[in-house]
Amino acid sequence: MDSYETYMRQALLLAREAANELEVPVGALVIKDGVVIGWGRNRRETAANALAHAELEAIHTACASLQRWRLTGCELIVTLEPCPMCAGAIINARLDRVVFGASDPKAGSLGSLTNLFALPYNHKPQVIKGVLEQECAEILKDFFKCLRNKK
Amino acid sequence: MDSYETYMRQALLLAREAANELEVPVGALVIKDGVVIGWGRNRRETAANALAHAELEAIHTACASLQRWRLTGCELIVTLEPCPMCAGAIINARLDRVVFGASDPKAGSLGSLTNLFALPYNHKPQVIKGVLEQECAEILKDFFKCLRNKK
Repeated sequence: MDSYETYMRQALLLAREAANELEVPVGALVIKDGVVIGWGRNRRETAANALAHAELEAIHTACASLQRWRLTGCELIVTLEPCPMCAGAIINARLDRVVFGASDPKAGSLGSLTNLFALPYNHKPQVIKGVLEQECAEILKDFFKCLRNKK
Repeated sequence: MDSYETYMRQALLLAREAANELEVPVGALVIKDGVVIGWGRNRRETAANALAHAELEAIHTACASLQRWRLTGCELIVTLEPCPMCAGAIINARLDRVVFGASDPKAGSLGSLTNLFALPYNHKPQVIKGVLEQECAEILKDFFKCLRNKK
């Protein structure tokens, strides 16, 4: 769990980069054998792309690093519970495990809004939730509070 | 319905391009006001990328065409019922409507394996299914039959 906290701190740094660009602050990493092979942060507004969620960016770079679509033996670390698109991408990429920080009651698809890993699919990644939960929730809370104050 | 058949024939041409590259043949288009603004075909093997499904490629090019992430006023045409990742992407991109050909009992997420548009989300695209269903199912059937014969 200690090492997951270290990775989650790195994911939080990526989330902070997103916040600095006025993007909803979410950051993600893909790890293989302890090494970071993929990384991403939410870039929906700056990239003008609905697909530019942190998890998809991290999976994209991880596939590029390994030069294969199958991310068996890899783990995804993300500050926020994945949405349906990202949970589906995690299944498609055959990731072994997902570690997330804060839960997302609005769109979280690993137990909050729905649980896509409970579908009768042939691949079910393991889930670890709540790593640095408070920090991961606070960065979002602060971002939205700041946005409201600007209006 | 007639015009959807015309678009679906174009999506089938993209699916055929995929088959020619030994990719599972799925093709997709994004339409706005009758004009094709996004297109894609499955490229998972050639791109070595788990995200390279036809729908994500089509949404990606449509966002690039309009230079915005919100595809309000647009429709997605796809030969096969979308998987969870692609159904989630369709929600995230705020597409108005999805038109698909063949159903997918294994991963279809607009009514077959699950129905992601039934989640209590704030955006629910309209769904039209079964356009050129037989042709869309046959191109897949022929592809897998051909693969089996090669082994």
